[in-house]
Amino acid sequence: MSAPADWIAVDWGTTRLRAWVMDGAGREIAHLASDRGMGGLAPDAFEPALLELVGPHLAEGRATPVIACGMVGARQGWIEAAYEAVPCAPPGLAHATRAPAADPRLDVMILPGLSQDRPADVMRGEETQIAGFLATVPDFDGTICLPGTHTKWVQVSAGEVVSFRTVMTGELFAAISGHTVLRHTVGHGSDEAAFIDGVADGMARPEALTARLFGLRAEALLHGLDADAAASRLSGLLIGLELAGARGYWLGTRLALVGAAGLIARYAAALRAQGALPEVADGDEMVLAGLKAASAGRN
Amino acid sequence: MSAPADWIAVDWGTTRLRAWVMDGAGREIAHLASDRGMGGLAPDAFEPALLELVGPHLAEGRATPVIACGMVGARQGWIEAAYEAVPCAPPGLAHATRAPAADPRLDVMILPGLSQDRPADVMRGEETQIAGFLATVPDFDGTICLPGTHTKWVQVSAGEVVSFRTVMTGELFAAISGHTVLRHTVGHGSDEAAFIDGVADGMARPEALTARLFGLRAEALLHGLDADAAASRLSGLLIGLELAGARGYWLGTRLALVGAAGLIARYAAALRAQGALPEVADGDEMVLAGLKAASAGRN
Repeated sequence: MSAPADWIAVDWGTTRLRAWVMDGAGREIAHLASDRGMGGLAPDAFEPALLELVGPHLAEGRATPVIACGMVGARQGWIEAAYEAVPCAPPGLAHATRAPAADPRLDVMILPGLSQDRPADVMRGEETQIAGFLATVPDFDGTICLPGTHTKWVQVSAGEVVSFRTVMTGELFAAISGHTVLRHTVGHGSDEAAFIDGVADGMARPEALTARLFGLRAEALLHGLDADAAASRLSGLLIGLELAGARGYWLGTRLALVGAAGLIARYAAALRAQGALPEVADGDEMVLAGLKAASAGRN
Repeated sequence: MSAPADWIAVDWGTTRLRAWVMDGAGREIAHLASDRGMGGLAPDAFEPALLELVGPHLAEGRATPVIACGMVGARQGWIEAAYEAVPCAPPGLAHATRAPAADPRLDVMILPGLSQDRPADVMRGEETQIAGFLATVPDFDGTICLPGTHTKWVQVSAGEVVSFRTVMTGELFAAISGHTVLRHTVGHGSDEAAFIDGVADGMARPEALTARLFGLRAEALLHGLDADAAASRLSGLLIGLELAGARGYWLGTRLALVGAAGLIARYAAALRAQGALPEVADGDEMVLAGLKAASAGRN
């Protein structure tokens, strides 16, 4: 029989559900994951999906606190955890929403995301990574960039999120490389020089983007452009466009990248080529640190 | 029994096959269409697809000339009709490639597309619309824009294509509205004011594109942005980005738009908002005019 949890940290996104089972001394007993993301679940399917994953770790006769963040709190999730409006500190348990659970062994609290009125913007999940980063680097003042499907650029000052901007770079890469004529041209490998060239070109001539895209196809047809170089150049063009638009977020300010190692390395290379020197932190570690910071608010 | 054809004009693209059956006096006997586009056909399936469509119009005992343009001449088509390199006039029959046909009633000639070495670019089919436009407006000197899935901006002088540029605006709109999170946000209707706003914004701040895209989602979530307005704004942003990049093609020059009426109207509105006054011509009429011009070269 597994050791019972003191509490459970949950990161529940669109495509994945992950849980860290914690003991009373703050140690990780187990790290669990499933593909039962919010995107595929009806509201009444969340509790069974969670029980399937963490059931063996629940003590009998008492409710185990579960602290969750991410799309589980969206309108289409388990229950809506209304956004907190910036400027504000990353929200803690005091702002969380209790999810309806039939099993008395569960006490599930969902942390809210953040919203910004003008320009309109929203995040769900990244605010908890930001909380984790600020718990780890408490004096941080500057910009946190969280690369991903929807990359977030977040201005942080005095422990608060001041403003943020979401760019769809990751999702655009997937849509262009998977659902346009470039699917015949773009491979899965990588070519560092082609990437850095693409970044420079995307930054210098953002208005040429849509012509550059077809140019990849034509370069492949006429001049044998390699599929890996095409993929890296496409990624570079899109990240270059993003960096041109987000210049106010990263130029001349303290900058941290939080996310998955591979993607972080790509953004770091692009930014270093522009003279920026980002700090880096692992996204999974930061989300767990953020959930731990929220859990500390239980007492 | 149908009247036999003198010759047959064929526009064979990726998704559609269209044929105009012509008599000896240059009149159209029939206009036929099928969905057997090049994209779904193996090389040996082209002849049956053509016979299925035009078979009843073929005379017995002699070969009927068929003049075709478009993706049918791509490497993955019936037979490759090698590109002609610009600068050059839109290619005529002298540069066409004979397709292998087993049926003695068919004599199929495929017109080549155009290629450009630097920056690398290609077209297949549009060159025939350009030929048709130049046959209709022989003194034209300036830029022809052919909006579509892959919009072409073509600089024409003294009857020759001097240079051109392909932008993937149409395909980007489809990929973004169909295969990203914006599929929940973008409708199918239209909103003229939102479109013109999007054009202005896309032109003024091309580097902000990827942030503006997620902004549509956030505007819908937070401020109830209408799905039709979102669709028009997305279209405007992408066309605005295109116009910013193609400025050298349309600013201060004679300009013609050739294509489908709905799309032409959209580009015309965007360009008029920038002070340009494009002439317009129907794309179907121009491709037929171009094939007729090629047919005149039979004699």
